[in-house]
Amino acid sequence: MRHTSVLPQKSHADMRALMQVALGEEQADLTILNAKLVNVYTAELQEPIGVAVKGPWIARVSADVGDTIGAETRVIDAAGRTLIPGLIDGHTHLSWICSVAAFVPYAIASGVTTVVTETLEPYPVAGIAGVLDLLASLQDQPIRILATAPSMVSISTAARGISPAALESLLAREEILGLGESYWQGVLQEPDVYLPAYAQTQRSGKVIEGHSAGASEKKLAAYAAAGASSCHEPINAEQVLTRLRLGMHVMVREGSIRRDLEEISKIRERGLDLRRLILASDGASPEDLVRRRYMDHVVQKAIGCGFSPVTAIQMATLNVAEHFRLDGFLGAVAPGRLADVVIIPDVATIAPEVVIAKGRVIFENGRVLAEGRRHLFSEASRNTVKLTRDQAPSDFSIRTPAGSRTVRVRVIEMVTDLVTAERHMDFPAEGSDLRADPARGICKIAAVDRTRSPGKTFTGLIQGFGLTSGAVACSAAWDTSDIVVVGTDENDMACAVNRLRTLQGGAVVCDKGRVLAEIPMPVFGIASESPMPTIVAQMQDFTRHIARRGVSFPDPLLSLITLTGAAIPYLRICEEGLVNLKDGKTLGLFVT
Amino acid sequence: MRHTSVLPQKSHADMRALMQVALGEEQADLTILNAKLVNVYTAELQEPIGVAVKGPWIARVSADVGDTIGAETRVIDAAGRTLIPGLIDGHTHLSWICSVAAFVPYAIASGVTTVVTETLEPYPVAGIAGVLDLLASLQDQPIRILATAPSMVSISTAARGISPAALESLLAREEILGLGESYWQGVLQEPDVYLPAYAQTQRSGKVIEGHSAGASEKKLAAYAAAGASSCHEPINAEQVLTRLRLGMHVMVREGSIRRDLEEISKIRERGLDLRRLILASDGASPEDLVRRRYMDHVVQKAIGCGFSPVTAIQMATLNVAEHFRLDGFLGAVAPGRLADVVIIPDVATIAPEVVIAKGRVIFENGRVLAEGRRHLFSEASRNTVKLTRDQAPSDFSIRTPAGSRTVRVRVIEMVTDLVTAERHMDFPAEGSDLRADPARGICKIAAVDRTRSPGKTFTGLIQGFGLTSGAVACSAAWDTSDIVVVGTDENDMACAVNRLRTLQGGAVVCDKGRVLAEIPMPVFGIASESPMPTIVAQMQDFTRHIARRGVSFPDPLLSLITLTGAAIPYLRICEEGLVNLKDGKTLGLFVT
Repeated sequence: MRHTSVLPQKSHADMRALMQVALGEEQADLTILNAKLVNVYTAELQEPIGVAVKGPWIARVSADVGDTIGAETRVIDAAGRTLIPGLIDGHTHLSWICSVAAFVPYAIASGVTTVVTETLEPYPVAGIAGVLDLLASLQDQPIRILATAPSMVSISTAARGISPAALESLLAREEILGLGESYWQGVLQEPDVYLPAYAQTQRSGKVIEGHSAGASEKKLAAYAAAGASSCHEPINAEQVLTRLRLGMHVMVREGSIRRDLEEISKIRERGLDLRRLILASDGASPEDLVRRRYMDHVVQKAIGCGFSPVTAIQMATLNVAEHFRLDGFLGAVAPGRLADVVIIPDVATIAPEVVIAKGRVIFENGRVLAEGRRHLFSEASRNTVKLTRDQAPSDFSIRTPAGSRTVRVRVIEMVTDLVTAERHMDFPAEGSDLRADPARGICKIAAVDRTRSPGKTFTGLIQGFGLTSGAVACSAAWDTSDIVVVGTDENDMACAVNRLRTLQGGAVVCDKGRVLAEIPMPVFGIASESPMPTIVAQMQDFTRHIARRGVSFPDPLLSLITLTGAAIPYLRICEEGLVNLKDGKTLGLFVT
Repeated sequence: MRHTSVLPQKSHADMRALMQVALGEEQADLTILNAKLVNVYTAELQEPIGVAVKGPWIARVSADVGDTIGAETRVIDAAGRTLIPGLIDGHTHLSWICSVAAFVPYAIASGVTTVVTETLEPYPVAGIAGVLDLLASLQDQPIRILATAPSMVSISTAARGISPAALESLLAREEILGLGESYWQGVLQEPDVYLPAYAQTQRSGKVIEGHSAGASEKKLAAYAAAGASSCHEPINAEQVLTRLRLGMHVMVREGSIRRDLEEISKIRERGLDLRRLILASDGASPEDLVRRRYMDHVVQKAIGCGFSPVTAIQMATLNVAEHFRLDGFLGAVAPGRLADVVIIPDVATIAPEVVIAKGRVIFENGRVLAEGRRHLFSEASRNTVKLTRDQAPSDFSIRTPAGSRTVRVRVIEMVTDLVTAERHMDFPAEGSDLRADPARGICKIAAVDRTRSPGKTFTGLIQGFGLTSGAVACSAAWDTSDIVVVGTDENDMACAVNRLRTLQGGAVVCDKGRVLAEIPMPVFGIASESPMPTIVAQMQDFTRHIARRGVSFPDPLLSLITLTGAAIPYLRICEEGLVNLKDGKTLGLFVT
C-alpha cells in the first residue's frame, strides 16, 4: 500500500488487505503487544490489548493479536504501557515565524500526529497562489497537516474577504477542512462580504471555524445561526458554557498567545457532557516548542487541572476528529482508522515514548526518527515586500490641518499587551508636524502596505507601547499586507522598514540609524527558513533589544503585529487608517 | 423563505434573515416562550428558555426572546413545559406494508421529525427506478425522511449487489446518507462483490450502515476495518460494548422485529461514554404504530430502564444526528439548526404535546395537523409480479433422484420464530415425489421468482413452521425478488401464488382452493396503499387464519418472509436453492 495523500482513501484492495490481517489470514506490517488502551469512544481503559497495523491503517485491536505476526512483521512489546491515539492540534498557525519542516520534529516528540492550521497569513500578500504554496509545504510530512481556507476578516478593506472562485478551489481540496477562523465582527458588521463564503462552505459540507471573543448573547446567537461551528476564544468556564450550549465545539486555548486551560477547567464542576470540548494551541512559539510545551504538555496540564485522564485525552483526539468530521479516519485506535498511536507510560502520564503516524514509527527511545520535509517556496512567495523605493523619514510625518491651534487626535492606547483602547488627546498644532513624545509614552505608529498598494502608508500615534528610543518593525502584521512599525523617530522608522525591504520580510529593531537585531522571514515576509534553535536565539536577541528600549510586554513582537489585527479590541491601524473594532469603520487620525 | 428540499441549504439571504431575528432586528415567524430546554450538547436542563424561529430554522435560543415577537409572529407559551429536539428514528424500513403517507401521522404524534429509512426492498423487484420512485414518495412530507442506498446482500446471486452506476447516482442525492445495512456475511464471504460499494461510499464521505449479528471478534474487526460504521443488531450489553469499543455507532433496536432495550440497558452499570449509543426501531408494524409504540414510547422506556432522561433523549436526537453527520442541521434545539422541536410535560415524561417540524406546528392539542403526502407510484412500481402464467400444483413437486431407496434431504428447521437450522432427514423415495407431512410437522416451502426470471422456482421442506392445512404466501420476501410460500398441499400453494399474481403482490392464506385472508400490497408487491386501520385489520385477520391452522409464531408473516433473508441464521431459501448463511454457498435439496 502506498499513500502519499493527506487523507488517504482506502481502495477496494486496501480494504481487502485490512480485512485479511484482521482475520489473521495475512501478516501485519506492525503489531503492538501487551498494551493497555485508552478507548476514547467508551472512555474505558482496556487491558490487555494488541494492535495490528497494515500500511497506514489499523486492522485489528483486540486482546490477542499474535496471529497477525509473520516473518516480516515489526513487533513492539508495549510491556504493559498505555496506548492513546495520536494527539491532534485542531487550531494553529503554521505559516508564522518557523517553517513547517522545523516545526514537525517538535510536534512528533509531543505525540502530535495531526495538525489543523490556518492559512490566512499568506493570502493578503500572496493571494491564492501563496495559499497553495503553503499547502504544498504541508504535504508529504511524517505527520498529517490539514488546513482551513482563509476567510480574511481584515480591518483593511483592500484585504477583506476571499473570492468565491478562490474559496471554491480550496474547499475542493481534501486537506481543507473548512473556512478558517472568521472573526464574528466581520459577518455581523458586513454580512454581504462574508455570508456568501459561509453559504459556500456549508454547501461543501465542511465547517466554518469561529472566533467569537466578546460577542454578546444575541450576537453569539446570530453568529451561530450563520453557521459558525467552533470558537477558541473563551477565557473562562462561563464563556465556554455559553458556546457549548449553542452546539459550538469549543477549543480551550493553551498556547503561546494565551493559556486559558486552568481558568476554563472550572467547567468540570458542572458535570456537563464535554464531547464538544477540545484542547488546541492556537499557535506554539518556537521558544515554547523548544521548551516542550506543546500538546503532550497541554493534555498533561488538563489532567493536572482535574480533568480525568481519559477526558483530557478525548479532548485532544476523538473530540477534535468529530468536530472536523474526520472520526472515520482518525482520533481513535480502532480498526479502519489511520495507524496514529502514541505509547505513554500510563494513562495519567502524557510522556510519549513511541509515536506512530500513518503506520510508521517516527519517535522512539527519545529520538525523532523522521525529518520534516523542506519545501522550496516559489519566487513569488519569497518576494512579497514590493516597495519600489526606500522609505524616507518624511513618509512618516503627520501633517496637522492648517489653521488650528490644537488638534484632537485618536491615539491607540495599549490597555494590556494585546488589548487597546481609542483615546482622544489634544496636541498643540505647532508647525505642521506631529511628533512622537517618548517622555509622555507616545510613539509614532505606521502601517505600510508592502504588497497591494506598495508604499501606501498611514501614520498615527500610540501610547503605552513603552518604546523609549529607536524603532521596531515587522512584516508579519496580522490580517493585512502591511509592515507595522512603531518608533520614537521617523529616521529609525524608515531605517527599520527599509531593512525589511532588503530582507524581503522579517522583524527588525533599529536605533540611531543602525540595525540592532533582526529575524529574517523571507517566506511571505512571515516565516523564517532557519532551524528552530536559530529562530529562538534571534527572537531572544530581538526581545532583549526591545526590552532595553523600554518595552516590557511578555512577547513584544506579538504586541506589535496584532496592532493591525481584526480580532483583538479595540483601536487598530492599517494602511487605510484607524479602525475601532466596535463598528469596524475606518477613521482618520483627527477627531473632527 | 421557501424550502422544499429534504435538507435545505441556507442561502446567503436565509442566513442574513436568521441573523436579524437573532439580533432582535426582525420579527420571528414563531416564538416559544417560558420553556425549559433539554440541552443535548451539554446534557443540561436550561431554564427559562425561549426559542425564535424563522422559516424552517431556529434563529435564537435564549432566556428572553420577547424582542423577536412582532405583529405576525405566532407565539407559543410553553408555560414551564420542556422542549426537546424532534426525535429521530435512525434505522427503519418505510417501504414495507404501509405507505409513507399512512406512516407519517403516527410518526408525528410520536414526536418524530426525522426518519432514516432503508430502500433495499424495491431494488430486487424494481431496480434503481423503483428506489427512485420510493425516494420520490419520501419527498415533501411534513417531517423529514432520509434514506440509505441498498447494498443488496442477498442469498440469491441474481439479486446480489448494486451496480456502481446506480450507487453513484444515489450517493449524489442529498437525502441519501450512505450505504444501507450491509449484512457482514456479504463482505466477509464475497469481498469482491461488496468492497467496491464500500470504497465508493467512503469516497463520497457518507456512512456504511452495518449489520453484524453474530460476528466473532476477528470478523467484527474485519467488518469495522472495511468501514462498517454502525450496527443495530446487538441483543445484550456485552455485544453493544464490543461494537462501541470499535467506534461503531450502536443502535439499540426497540421495534416490531425485536425489543432489545431492556436487556441492553444493563450497559448503564459500566459508566461508559455513551455518545455513540442510539435508539432505533428497525421498523414499526402498523399494529405497533396504532398502539402508539413508536419513538416517544421507546425514549420513555429507556428512561424506565434507568437511563437518565437527558441521556435517553440524546440517544434519539444528537447521537443519531452525529452518526449521520447531520448535527449541523438537526438533532438539537440551537441557532442555525432546523426548527424541529417537541414540547413535553417534563424531562421524564416523553408525551408530545406540541410537535414542530421545519418551523411548522404539526401536532397540537392531541391532533395531527399535517397529512402525509400520498405519492402516485409508477406503473412499473405497481406491476412487479411478472409471472407469465398461473402456477400449477406440479410446479411445487419435488422429484427424487432415480434409483435410490431413501434420500437424505436438507430441511429448514424453525429453531425460533425467525432463526432456522439446517437439518438432514431421510425420506423414503417412494414413487418420484416428496410430499409435505403435516403430521410430522413438515411442510413444503417454495421460493418463486416474480421479477427477474419470472416463474423460476425452488421447492424444499420446512419443519416446525406449524402449518397443518392449506398454504400461506407473501411477495414481500426479504432480500430477493421472490414470492415465498409454505404449504401442506401443492394445490393450495399454487392457489396462494396465483392469487398474489392477480393482486400484484401481498400476503394470502389459502385452504382447499379458497382464499381465506389477504393483504394486498400493490406497491412493489411489498406495500399496501390502504389506510393504517384497514391494514391492521387485514393483518389481524391474516394472523387469525394462520393461527387457526397451527402456526403459533408471534408474527407469522415476519417468520414467513424472513425465510429468504440473508441476515438471520442459518438455512434460507431462494429461487436458486438453499443457502446456509455460515458460508453463503447455494445448496441443492439432497445431501449427496
